[in-house]
Amino acid sequence: MEITYHNTRIDYDEERKLGTILTLANGKIGVRGELELIPIDSCTLISGVYSDVPIFHRDIVCLPRTVGVYIIVDGTPLNLVDGGFELKRTLDIRTGVVKTKLTWSKGKSLIYESTRLVHKVRKNIIAVNSRIRPQGFQGEITLILPLEFASSNPLPPGNISIKHYRICKVKGCDDTIVTDIETLDDKYGITIALKSVTNTQCKRQIIRFPHSIGEALSFKVMGDNVYEVTKFISIVSSRDDPYYHEKALRELQSAIQLGWDNLYREHAEWWRNTWNKLNLHVDGDEGVERALCFNAFHLLQLGDEDSEYCMIPARGLHGVGYRGHIFWDADIYTLPFYTLVNPVIARKMLTYRYRLLKAARKMAKERGYRGAMYPWEAADVDYDVTPDKVPLDIKWEKWIKIWTGEEEQHITADIAYAVDFYYQYTLDDEFMEKYGLEIIFETARFWACRVEYDKDRGKYVIRRVTGPDEYHVHVDNNFYTNIMARWNLLLGVKYYNLALERNEWKKIVSKLGVSKREVETWCTIASKIYIPCSSDGLYEQFEGYSNLEDYTINSLECLGQECLPEIVRNRLEKTKIIKQADVVMAFHLLGDLFRKEDMLRNFNYYLPRTTHESSLSLSIYASVAARLGLTSLAYKLFRKAVNIDLQDIYGNTRDGIHVASAGGAWCSFLFGFLGLKVHNDNLTLDPKIPKHWRKVSINVVFRGELKNIKVE
Amino acid sequence: MEITYHNTRIDYDEERKLGTILTLANGKIGVRGELELIPIDSCTLISGVYSDVPIFHRDIVCLPRTVGVYIIVDGTPLNLVDGGFELKRTLDIRTGVVKTKLTWSKGKSLIYESTRLVHKVRKNIIAVNSRIRPQGFQGEITLILPLEFASSNPLPPGNISIKHYRICKVKGCDDTIVTDIETLDDKYGITIALKSVTNTQCKRQIIRFPHSIGEALSFKVMGDNVYEVTKFISIVSSRDDPYYHEKALRELQSAIQLGWDNLYREHAEWWRNTWNKLNLHVDGDEGVERALCFNAFHLLQLGDEDSEYCMIPARGLHGVGYRGHIFWDADIYTLPFYTLVNPVIARKMLTYRYRLLKAARKMAKERGYRGAMYPWEAADVDYDVTPDKVPLDIKWEKWIKIWTGEEEQHITADIAYAVDFYYQYTLDDEFMEKYGLEIIFETARFWACRVEYDKDRGKYVIRRVTGPDEYHVHVDNNFYTNIMARWNLLLGVKYYNLALERNEWKKIVSKLGVSKREVETWCTIASKIYIPCSSDGLYEQFEGYSNLEDYTINSLECLGQECLPEIVRNRLEKTKIIKQADVVMAFHLLGDLFRKEDMLRNFNYYLPRTTHESSLSLSIYASVAARLGLTSLAYKLFRKAVNIDLQDIYGNTRDGIHVASAGGAWCSFLFGFLGLKVHNDNLTLDPKIPKHWRKVSINVVFRGELKNIKVE
Repeated sequence: MEITYHNTRIDYDEERKLGTILTLANGKIGVRGELELIPIDSCTLISGVYSDVPIFHRDIVCLPRTVGVYIIVDGTPLNLVDGGFELKRTLDIRTGVVKTKLTWSKGKSLIYESTRLVHKVRKNIIAVNSRIRPQGFQGEITLILPLEFASSNPLPPGNISIKHYRICKVKGCDDTIVTDIETLDDKYGITIALKSVTNTQCKRQIIRFPHSIGEALSFKVMGDNVYEVTKFISIVSSRDDPYYHEKALRELQSAIQLGWDNLYREHAEWWRNTWNKLNLHVDGDEGVERALCFNAFHLLQLGDEDSEYCMIPARGLHGVGYRGHIFWDADIYTLPFYTLVNPVIARKMLTYRYRLLKAARKMAKERGYRGAMYPWEAADVDYDVTPDKVPLDIKWEKWIKIWTGEEEQHITADIAYAVDFYYQYTLDDEFMEKYGLEIIFETARFWACRVEYDKDRGKYVIRRVTGPDEYHVHVDNNFYTNIMARWNLLLGVKYYNLALERNEWKKIVSKLGVSKREVETWCTIASKIYIPCSSDGLYEQFEGYSNLEDYTINSLECLGQECLPEIVRNRLEKTKIIKQADVVMAFHLLGDLFRKEDMLRNFNYYLPRTTHESSLSLSIYASVAARLGLTSLAYKLFRKAVNIDLQDIYGNTRDGIHVASAGGAWCSFLFGFLGLKVHNDNLTLDPKIPKHWRKVSINVVFRGELKNIKVE
Repeated sequence: MEITYHNTRIDYDEERKLGTILTLANGKIGVRGELELIPIDSCTLISGVYSDVPIFHRDIVCLPRTVGVYIIVDGTPLNLVDGGFELKRTLDIRTGVVKTKLTWSKGKSLIYESTRLVHKVRKNIIAVNSRIRPQGFQGEITLILPLEFASSNPLPPGNISIKHYRICKVKGCDDTIVTDIETLDDKYGITIALKSVTNTQCKRQIIRFPHSIGEALSFKVMGDNVYEVTKFISIVSSRDDPYYHEKALRELQSAIQLGWDNLYREHAEWWRNTWNKLNLHVDGDEGVERALCFNAFHLLQLGDEDSEYCMIPARGLHGVGYRGHIFWDADIYTLPFYTLVNPVIARKMLTYRYRLLKAARKMAKERGYRGAMYPWEAADVDYDVTPDKVPLDIKWEKWIKIWTGEEEQHITADIAYAVDFYYQYTLDDEFMEKYGLEIIFETARFWACRVEYDKDRGKYVIRRVTGPDEYHVHVDNNFYTNIMARWNLLLGVKYYNLALERNEWKKIVSKLGVSKREVETWCTIASKIYIPCSSDGLYEQFEGYSNLEDYTINSLECLGQECLPEIVRNRLEKTKIIKQADVVMAFHLLGDLFRKEDMLRNFNYYLPRTTHESSLSLSIYASVAARLGLTSLAYKLFRKAVNIDLQDIYGNTRDGIHVASAGGAWCSFLFGFLGLKVHNDNLTLDPKIPKHWRKVSINVVFRGELKNIKVE
């Protein structure tokens, strides 16, 4: 499975998009995929390595670029901007590498080919294997193989950048370059070591500039010989190992000893095994199969099996969009994929949420609630990293207030939902005992405090929130939030009852002081949570929604606000137009709670009122449409959702992969089209697939066993 | 007169300091002096070209670096960081150029020599003439001659940078590189054109990278031949010419036609003529003569004789310290030098202040005053650009409130003082008619409103200001401010009376509606302004100063707060410790108003209480000490003041030249040591010079005539 791009010129916008699409990562390290042959803003990210930043609290740190390879022919650097070449780049998903082939034909001709990898087994290793074939000329070719320290993070409105690390020491000796850097908040130390290996005779020098250090290897070339160089890089952070400096040297040494061929083989084998295990086939729809694989590839790249816990940022380790923060995207959109394909990652993602319990308890307490209230945006610290406001102009005089941090409280129920989901598919009792139950009880506890009793209605209400649809803030009784809060309370009840039958679980109940009486309260509240309905039997997205100005769009053609007339754009909050699946989101997660005809009526109502401005929308509508038997519509929505990055549908793929849409497309596929579900302790299927999918096959992990799913 | 630096390694801190010291400028363009042979943060500034920035309102824009020259020998770039070379750099003040000589002896040996200029006559032209002599080897040498687009401005606390320009178009054809850029606020367009010329056969290519475009010239070298290349650059902004693009091409073409030799000759001649005209000699003290010349050189570099008006930023066109803003440094510290040495610049500086009258009137009005209240910090816009607060930490959570913009109101009187000073030495009637009178009347008007009548005292008081000493804010009746306000009012009276005798001036009086009655009020207020004195006959820096905790230091040894114990540093505002000359500043400007014995007593009192944390202090104490006959003490203070940048005494020369101290040292010399003064329409002398100054000679311009001053 290969994704290939051809260029005869360098276009920077295109290059930044490819930078994301061709990103290689292994869960620990992410290396952006811009062309290695040109100096360009590009960087390396390490999972969990953040630093302090104005406004956004914490930034995932753009670390130095490691993969640059610059070619000098007879003294003159190759000018790759003005054409005169053919460039072919391939993301080879099967083996997890990026291949680059440059055919240079201006002046002296040569062919440059390389293979780049971010090792999936040796998680601190990056390597670029380059081969140059001069096309029948005699002269001198120099390869410059640098470590580049220019990388920095952008701050809005875009022309400001912040460099999050200082270089403590740069040493180049014995042909090994070793750099020690530290984040400016002093929280992390990182060592990057680099050495290039060739078996051809060459002149070798270390070259230092203020913002780079590198090796220069010069070959006297003649005829059509092949000159091969491998750039080995190791990166280790103090997050990984307290003796990170020593480990970086050790890992580099051992990669070099292994040699490029073996290193590549080991890496490619991991990927081949992974694909074999997944065994995905969508016969009759190569495009969808390919796009699903592309999304799976990038999701699988984000999992670190060796780490204590996994953080899945909204834009992956593929870019600095959303500053590397972690949202509900992780728990609701990607966790189901991981649970079914690589459950160890799903577990580590929830372990990360468990680590945040301290922060969540603190947040609840500060607001006068009991239990745990999760931060809307999270990073490597135990506090919410949602910005409070964001500047709109160059002078930072105009700001927009960001309400999500205060109001988008459904995140807390989303995490409890994810814990239960994970447990349903894995029966991982040990996880529940160590982490899961505590999350479920503490979040249930939060909602029991968060609701208010409305005497007039005789119902519990949740006032002043923002639902998934962020066009409407400060709303009361958001359908999605209330449904999920109820679900969270009921999970509390369910796991309490389960716990009564198990000694190990009982300990958790007593440790947390969950009493029978408290659980009865959860039960009462759950049964009386107000669920807004309008008079015509529709679910109301929030109280008062039905009184808003109505406006409908062709939601299949439109993406974002551009399909709206300006007059509507300027008063969005006064209209029924919504940003993304909200009521329909609840159907996606908890479809069994609703009658099919109700879901259908609501689906048909909300779809033409949704702009899909968020990339979290299409996949959910697709999933629910499939469940409702609207197969053709489902397929149309799904085709868009599954191609969001491959086709750069939102025009911002440059900022990183859309993790939620990659995971969401997989959810549509697995739960929408295939209708996977846990029923009476069995994994059941209820396929509603497009006719032209002649055969669908995939292996998923269910409760420790690999199961083959086949629909023909 | 040459300032020479030798290096055998590149040290970046040293390089940034040299970047300032070796800056070349012509009043329109400033080019920082970092070594051209290495890629390093360095930039080009254009006088008056600012853009919007958070916190600081306007930033002088760091424009692309133009002067880089990178050497590749046999395919490998010269590695200038790890030694193996000798580097000699010379600022040749006589001819206004920087000369660089690199003797490279690692591997293949070569000598690189260059001369760099920023043309003082053709104000849009920069040129670097480079000559390479390989030391008896055969091979290939490539020179890369780029335009580099990485430059950006820093934001505190230091790791944030803001790029103020966008690149609209980069074109390289016919061996000419033309780049159009715009500031992000859309206010200015700039064209930079570049072409390299050599008369030796070479291979020539244009090389483009994302952040640079340049020419690559490759020479097959042998033996000891000399390979010469001149990089010609033209820069024109829309501030300069609406057809700046065309002008840039035209200017480049005409410089190339003239050729390096003639271009250099024309430039060097301007400087030789300037020095001949100045004719400075301090026989017996080469160090002082040299330092005065160094300061004069940088001040003269800042004057643009061809511009409509001149802005002299606090750190020159030498760096982005104080973000290119204009303070009283210009009017009080440098204007006297320009008035006596190059009065056309002094006039244009005041023309700039005239242009700000609109802003000053608006500021006064907003605060409920009449007349004009000048902004403490000014730039290219008609509003105050003083920051309101400045962040102290990386997250921008801790801020320090900046009071100067609201309180340091003496700037208004300082500008009126400068107008009168200029007129005294030039009798430039036309200037007064067009600009000067209006400034004087409008500022007098401001003070007449600004004062409050204190019935108990029967005096006019000025409450809540900050004087030059910024350790004490919100003070009432600051001695310096009150003295200067009084002077400003008296200037109003004086010029009103003069105006009555001249028809042209009378028109201004009537245009502004200045009435006899109003002027009588000025007179009354001036005679009754409260001047704070303590009981022991000392002038009190402000009301209540004498009640503060006393503490004294050895102010000759100390510079800044470091000489203070921590306990004092933490409660500076409660002590008598001051930052810089304040009472003594008034003696410097208006010495004739005070009795010598009073000045002496006060001088002796304030000196041991001054930290000289501001570079604006030493030169003023030196000047007043000289006037008071404390010649030896004066000389000690002066030696420090005159060397502030040459010896990097404040450790921040990297941010740009200390314009106020350069001008202040000249004030000490001219008015302190030589005792120049206008007396009865004559320029009089009252020398109090150190004994070892055997002979002092200088030419100054007085009322249109060049006068030779000689003290033997």
